[in-house]
Amino acid sequence: MKKETNYTFDNIRVVMVNTTEAGNIGAGARAMKNMCLSHLYLVNPKNYPCAMATARASGADDVLANAVICKTLSQALQGVNWIIGASARQRTIKWMQMDVVEACVEIQKITTFGQQVAVVFGSEKSGLTNEELDLCQVLMTIPGNPDYFSLNVASAIQVFGYQNFILNRQGLLKNTLNKPFKKAGFDELESFYTHLRQVLEHLDYFEEKRSKALLMRRLRRFFNRAVLEKEELAIFRGILRNIKPFQK
Amino acid sequence: MKKETNYTFDNIRVVMVNTTEAGNIGAGARAMKNMCLSHLYLVNPKNYPCAMATARASGADDVLANAVICKTLSQALQGVNWIIGASARQRTIKWMQMDVVEACVEIQKITTFGQQVAVVFGSEKSGLTNEELDLCQVLMTIPGNPDYFSLNVASAIQVFGYQNFILNRQGLLKNTLNKPFKKAGFDELESFYTHLRQVLEHLDYFEEKRSKALLMRRLRRFFNRAVLEKEELAIFRGILRNIKPFQK
Repeated sequence: MKKETNYTFDNIRVVMVNTTEAGNIGAGARAMKNMCLSHLYLVNPKNYPCAMATARASGADDVLANAVICKTLSQALQGVNWIIGASARQRTIKWMQMDVVEACVEIQKITTFGQQVAVVFGSEKSGLTNEELDLCQVLMTIPGNPDYFSLNVASAIQVFGYQNFILNRQGLLKNTLNKPFKKAGFDELESFYTHLRQVLEHLDYFEEKRSKALLMRRLRRFFNRAVLEKEELAIFRGILRNIKPFQK
Repeated sequence: MKKETNYTFDNIRVVMVNTTEAGNIGAGARAMKNMCLSHLYLVNPKNYPCAMATARASGADDVLANAVICKTLSQALQGVNWIIGASARQRTIKWMQMDVVEACVEIQKITTFGQQVAVVFGSEKSGLTNEELDLCQVLMTIPGNPDYFSLNVASAIQVFGYQNFILNRQGLLKNTLNKPFKKAGFDELESFYTHLRQVLEHLDYFEEKRSKALLMRRLRRFFNRAVLEKEELAIFRGILRNIKPFQK
């Protein structure tokens, strides 16, 4: 592995949320290490740590040992610039969707210049909840059998890792890349959403319209899909700051 | 899935040889079905059938139920036109190698015109033996971490199935394909190798040179790598038939 290709791998974190079978965490770690990924975040894992996880990691113990255990998904996303939610299910809600090939092409661009990407995998039984998906900027789907789509979570990590490795190896994009604008970080976005909610509450906006939760979800979805640059975020924050005083 | 893309899937068989963990057979079936593959061959599986295999198949029970159980690898390869051995290890012996992307590109070409492909996965512990590899025409490697390559066998099937699905979906090749020459089948090749050995024995060739086993392996390797067309095979068979009478 050449030194200069490592950016992509080092700037990716794999986040497993509410995993119920600890064996899948071990298998996920093994899948990651096979494809040069090492940053594993575990949100609220069940029955972990346990011997089954270590057994199925099969030599990827270092990935397990270095895994960061978090209580909430938000904690696992601190400092991340682009958040991808992996989902087998097609959602009824409209969301920006990419398949794993498209997502991995974007990852090459983003990580090459040092920005952080998180790929979030939900629980075995039901995948990501809508609340977890609210924190994601794009929904990544893995193509497959339209009549049976039941990817094991570690298998999904394996496919993602493989596709990312292959695209990284091709390195086709490297020479034609323009340096992307600096994207807003997760924490900045969350802070912005909080600010936005406060301002809208202050404006009595929610009462007049539909429920607060639904409306905030729509707004999040819009801004997440747009993938705010830092400078754009600063502009919106400035607008929010200007609104409040006028209403007081 | 459009009807016309099914050729590729229907003409591929996945062969698992000497699998020791029945759970991996179930996980392999699940990986296959997710990627539209359904023809599973099990050569000498250990502790199978068992509940663990069914549990890990997770809805791909039909793939398991239809799996063909064979005593030898040769049995599992009857009627196949192109045989791919999957191997993580780099072999010291020289063998025609392709990575999974290259192999899947070839598979699109071969299967589109109705020829059969087998992809053979060895045991968990040691992969394919040299004797098993003797029956294969190409060694397929899966790119990954050069410092840790320890793909679970079901994960390897998952990656292969995914790559094959993606290339099939792209369908890039369909319009530019020339109909390939008809390749010799597995049974024809084996029959040819037997004939070749008999003729060489008859010629007292082995005694004069090195060991029979080693020499036959080298010959197999050459013909396997070359991927004999049916017509070429007929020519060689004709030559062999012509040799024997002259020596008698």
